[in-house]
Amino acid sequence: MYNRKMRAAIVKSAEIIEIENIDIPECGPDDVLIEIKSCAICSSDIRVIKYPGPGQPPYGKFIPGHEYSGVIVEVGEQVDEFNIGDRVTTEAHYGCGRCSNCRRGLYTSCLNWGDDKRGHRVNGKTTPGGFAEYVVNHVSTVYKIPDSISFDEASLITNAGCVLYGFEKSGGYIVGDNVAVIGDGSIGLISVQIAKVLGADNVTLFGLDNYKMELGKKFGADKVFNFKTTHPVRLLKESPNSGVDFSIEASGSDSGIAAALELPKWGGKSLLIGIPKTGDVTADFKDFIRGNKNIYSVRGEGLSSCGRAVSLLKNKRLNLSSLITHNFKLAEINEAIDIHQNENEMSIKVIINPR
Amino acid sequence: MYNRKMRAAIVKSAEIIEIENIDIPECGPDDVLIEIKSCAICSSDIRVIKYPGPGQPPYGKFIPGHEYSGVIVEVGEQVDEFNIGDRVTTEAHYGCGRCSNCRRGLYTSCLNWGDDKRGHRVNGKTTPGGFAEYVVNHVSTVYKIPDSISFDEASLITNAGCVLYGFEKSGGYIVGDNVAVIGDGSIGLISVQIAKVLGADNVTLFGLDNYKMELGKKFGADKVFNFKTTHPVRLLKESPNSGVDFSIEASGSDSGIAAALELPKWGGKSLLIGIPKTGDVTADFKDFIRGNKNIYSVRGEGLSSCGRAVSLLKNKRLNLSSLITHNFKLAEINEAIDIHQNENEMSIKVIINPR
Amino acid sequence: MYNRKMRAAIVKSAEIIEIENIDIPECGPDDVLIEIKSCAICSSDIRVIKYPGPGQPPYGKFIPGHEYSGVIVEVGEQVDEFNIGDRVTTEAHYGCGRCSNCRRGLYTSCLNWGDDKRGHRVNGKTTPGGFAEYVVNHVSTVYKIPDSISFDEASLITNAGCVLYGFEKSGGYIVGDNVAVIGDGSIGLISVQIAKVLGADNVTLFGLDNYKMELGKKFGADKVFNFKTTHPVRLLKESPNSGVDFSIEASGSDSGIAAALELPKWGGKSLLIGIPKTGDVTADFKDFIRGNKNIYSVRGEGLSSCGRAVSLLKNKRLNLSSLITHNFKLAEINEAIDIHQNENEMSIKVIINPR
Amino acid sequence: MYNRKMRAAIVKSAEIIEIENIDIPECGPDDVLIEIKSCAICSSDIRVIKYPGPGQPPYGKFIPGHEYSGVIVEVGEQVDEFNIGDRVTTEAHYGCGRCSNCRRGLYTSCLNWGDDKRGHRVNGKTTPGGFAEYVVNHVSTVYKIPDSISFDEASLITNAGCVLYGFEKSGGYIVGDNVAVIGDGSIGLISVQIAKVLGADNVTLFGLDNYKMELGKKFGADKVFNFKTTHPVRLLKESPNSGVDFSIEASGSDSGIAAALELPKWGGKSLLIGIPKTGDVTADFKDFIRGNKNIYSVRGEGLSSCGRAVSLLKNKRLNLSSLITHNFKLAEINEAIDIHQNENEMSIKVIINPR
Repeated sequence: MYNRKMRAAIVKSAEIIEIENIDIPECGPDDVLIEIKSCAICSSDIRVIKYPGPGQPPYGKFIPGHEYSGVIVEVGEQVDEFNIGDRVTTEAHYGCGRCSNCRRGLYTSCLNWGDDKRGHRVNGKTTPGGFAEYVVNHVSTVYKIPDSISFDEASLITNAGCVLYGFEKSGGYIVGDNVAVIGDGSIGLISVQIAKVLGADNVTLFGLDNYKMELGKKFGADKVFNFKTTHPVRLLKESPNSGVDFSIEASGSDSGIAAALELPKWGGKSLLIGIPKTGDVTADFKDFIRGNKNIYSVRGEGLSSCGRAVSLLKNKRLNLSSLITHNFKLAEINEAIDIHQNENEMSIKVIINPR
Repeated sequence: MYNRKMRAAIVKSAEIIEIENIDIPECGPDDVLIEIKSCAICSSDIRVIKYPGPGQPPYGKFIPGHEYSGVIVEVGEQVDEFNIGDRVTTEAHYGCGRCSNCRRGLYTSCLNWGDDKRGHRVNGKTTPGGFAEYVVNHVSTVYKIPDSISFDEASLITNAGCVLYGFEKSGGYIVGDNVAVIGDGSIGLISVQIAKVLGADNVTLFGLDNYKMELGKKFGADKVFNFKTTHPVRLLKESPNSGVDFSIEASGSDSGIAAALELPKWGGKSLLIGIPKTGDVTADFKDFIRGNKNIYSVRGEGLSSCGRAVSLLKNKRLNLSSLITHNFKLAEINEAIDIHQNENEMSIKVIINPR
Repeated sequence: MYNRKMRAAIVKSAEIIEIENIDIPECGPDDVLIEIKSCAICSSDIRVIKYPGPGQPPYGKFIPGHEYSGVIVEVGEQVDEFNIGDRVTTEAHYGCGRCSNCRRGLYTSCLNWGDDKRGHRVNGKTTPGGFAEYVVNHVSTVYKIPDSISFDEASLITNAGCVLYGFEKSGGYIVGDNVAVIGDGSIGLISVQIAKVLGADNVTLFGLDNYKMELGKKFGADKVFNFKTTHPVRLLKESPNSGVDFSIEASGSDSGIAAALELPKWGGKSLLIGIPKTGDVTADFKDFIRGNKNIYSVRGEGLSSCGRAVSLLKNKRLNLSSLITHNFKLAEINEAIDIHQNENEMSIKVIINPR
Repeated sequence: MYNRKMRAAIVKSAEIIEIENIDIPECGPDDVLIEIKSCAICSSDIRVIKYPGPGQPPYGKFIPGHEYSGVIVEVGEQVDEFNIGDRVTTEAHYGCGRCSNCRRGLYTSCLNWGDDKRGHRVNGKTTPGGFAEYVVNHVSTVYKIPDSISFDEASLITNAGCVLYGFEKSGGYIVGDNVAVIGDGSIGLISVQIAKVLGADNVTLFGLDNYKMELGKKFGADKVFNFKTTHPVRLLKESPNSGVDFSIEASGSDSGIAAALELPKWGGKSLLIGIPKTGDVTADFKDFIRGNKNIYSVRGEGLSSCGRAVSLLKNKRLNLSSLITHNFKLAEINEAIDIHQNENEMSIKVIINPR
């Protein structure tokens, strides 16, 4: 059905990615082998290429990419949920299933991260990822998609799954609430959509790029402002106890995080998704604590949120295709990464189509 | 280190259990092999002996028993959390790890129940249990115990884990609350203890047996009544909106369940643990719905609650040893079951010590 | 601005309602006086007319009606949130503000129900209601409505508030979940809408009346069945662990409640809103407890859910106007009640327009 | 029963407090008048004396003090829950009861803070406080205490109520969890106690003062370290994903807050109670967000937590009397405040006994 060799993007060093011909990975008894149709570039791919994370394979062995979709071409002997030919999307995180976090459903925060022996895997981080022709996924990380969902859209379901996980982790019920979203990348723009889907009253988006902010309006943002020229706190807070019910930080900037903590009214909450570059961020905790507020943060697309995202997409409640700005072949991965990183380009999601 | 044969209690029919010499089960790569020191009889053991449940091995192949402790004698090749010689207790449920419930931490309600191929196991229900010299457990279901905890006590940790799971599932915070517990079996008596540990104000126990009710007092119940002669609702409710904050049903009787739903004040809650014999129970839902109440039910010792129970026991916050009324050898299992079922005997927990 | 007398529907006995000319009620310092434009009939109005509840004024003094909207004509001296002329809708429940439930936000379950001295009020139940030209409301129970919302629609906001309260109380996050709704009255039909708004995957409605079931489809139900001819459990459960994620009971029938408890898959949940006539209902608690399920019930439109309903209505996420089947003048209240009760009429919500 | 004049500590300026003879405040219809027996000094008293907060009465009119107990000497005309002579403790916050926060039980974060017209009061902050012979409290903020609880202890119930509110707000269920507490003031020392009461496994306290750290041990801390010489993170985290389940920040120091965010294992949580002096705090948000952690903060003793604290104290689960290091007469308030602020003194809680 398929030959035993495949082309894959191998990270050779912090600067060099090369397409190599390597063995197709083995499909374990509880796994499926997927022929990858679309794999999107995520900023975290760039980060781990330059700064390898815990449990990451060494340069020369590492295949990045964790946002992908494709077709099942082989199923493990213990798998009967899927059939060869099934169109599927995936999630990256497969926890060990035996630590106290995994047993409670917190598999994106598996305490055995990077421990192969104990069974932990995150494709594109600690195990082979999606910038290749084939990939092996544990059956628990795979979701069927109907024909109405394209592979390109489906590769972005991980993004929507991450946002949904954040909404669920922070309570999940926001009917009639006022929401502020900081950041106009894919996570911020999906957050706008989800906030509207779930019945938010007013959603205000703060961004930096006109093209993306226009998309935010199209996705339902009631108001859109440039973060550089309109400070969210000055706009949305008249007094310490006023403000939004819920702020979502999707920019990962220091000033975005500080604003996210200040924006909620007393008793309100913040969801932090964007990861700051250097780590240390200065924020007003006096206002925060006296405000009786909570902060939720989110890692990955936990609680099977990708399944929920498939449902929204299938029911036309979510628009992911408008986020796709570029498509490249696998051989063009270096160019694709350049486009993703080049701020002058109007790029949001850049997709590799390996076959 | 141990011979490859073991004695085990095999259910031959709904009426007959025999001790046979069979092969010691294989220890898989993520498993440990445990030499069983103590295995307690649970009412659900009796039930599944008579009325086999879904996924249960056929008569002639089935070893019951799911409340056990012992010593690790072999570890699978992927296991490094445990060593040979470790004293451990266990939990029965090992979910498939791939259904939507398991992925969310609801492994005691695995949607692939009884499906070996997909990896589901519940020892003593769908896979070999603890009335034997040895048993195999997945590493995620095993908890180390310190020397200060005896094997007999440790075999009851599953009971405490079940009660703790119920408390966690129903909110888990009851400081200063008034609590009513219906049922003076082991689950009811442990519920009294946990309610007091967690800071309940008044705990009222309703039971049927003087010996057990006395134990309830010793365990901290502020008041103890005979359920037959003092109706909980008449005692604790002066008006529809009055009542306890939290009722716990541990008798499994129809009248107990009906009372549990009526006991809470408006806005209060009930936790149902005891399983009614025939199923159909009649209760006042008009009062319940107008009362804005919630009902939580609990199956098994989910969310790794057995680990929490080990902590309480280690820290002397829990008394399980007083629940142990009888000990038997493996060869005496039929006598042990008789004692467990004989209501004239003052039995609470009856333990088999296979070696 | 208004004369000090008003016409009001006074319940003279279990059978007789008469329009009388009485004094307009006094507007307290934290109250507003509302000129009522629309007041909808609720089944609970019929119940309390026949069977007076706790704290209800005696026959000869009692004005029913708790689902109403109108225009503010007077504001109390401590009120500056509202102005004369404001178009508003209302919620019925005003708790005492001093019992432990009210202090926790459970004001629809105020423990001082019917205790005037301690400040409890529920208009149309324990204090004068909306089948009159004017009514007094505490400022906390009043919500402004924009011109885009008609008074008739606005009078149904209490219904939507009740459903929203139920969703919030039972978790509130159902993205991608499968939902079953039992009951095709206004509460059931609004539940269908809210389930779809909040991102449910499949919503199946079980009803009795073709006209209402058609409306259910229009409101987004994916499938609609006649409860008499298609049993929900047989349709939606292949095995004990299968079923919906969430069942909503809005019929108040015994068989509806029994089905609602059985419908969820293991680990699922039920929301009970419909109140059974006689109270005692028989349901399978064995299946329920072994299924690790939860039941939530709801009384009234708590947690300021009417404010959330105004937001949904304003944002065109909710259709309440299609539920309105009849309008009557205040003088026609007896005829209106007949229509509401007459099952041969295609009535859903019947509205009185006092002026 | 009492004369209409009383002595009270009036803040004349940021530096000067004088005892004056003023009118006893009026007891409103829903209020009680309390003869104060004990009123403890809180650090926030010092803060608002120097830096008046929103809604605070002007210098010359302001009576601080919000942690007090006493005896009821007058009850308002609408009050029947209390009688003259009742021994009571109190909570400071009485929300407006009409904003969206109060309606949801978030009365310590009332959105009408300081708005007298809308009914908001916080005694000792926006309305007259407890450094006086008499004080007026709304009936909802008063709790009876049994004779077994002294007035001095009872004045600290607000402290315990604040800690309990924090535990409840952050989930409230910590059986078997590892907990770190930063700060050895009264809030930190009570946090140690509550963590142990609620079944924490290991509680590690980080403090600065030997006397207080010894008290921490007595209160159940398993390990106690000097925050200056033993950094919590170096002690308790071997790797990014390891750490405690729950960290509690009660020092209000910048380094304490930064440590609190870093201490939890992946998926863990922090509770922030101590308020930092200047506000801006720098913390590692990269670690925090990638750790999938949550932060909860707490203002005041919400959700009627003082009632829960009375229960714990009555049931001997809490030791507040050991926190009391000094007692003074009302006339000695300036000396008392000096002692409270003087770091060389071994003071924890300093109490004024006005009569």
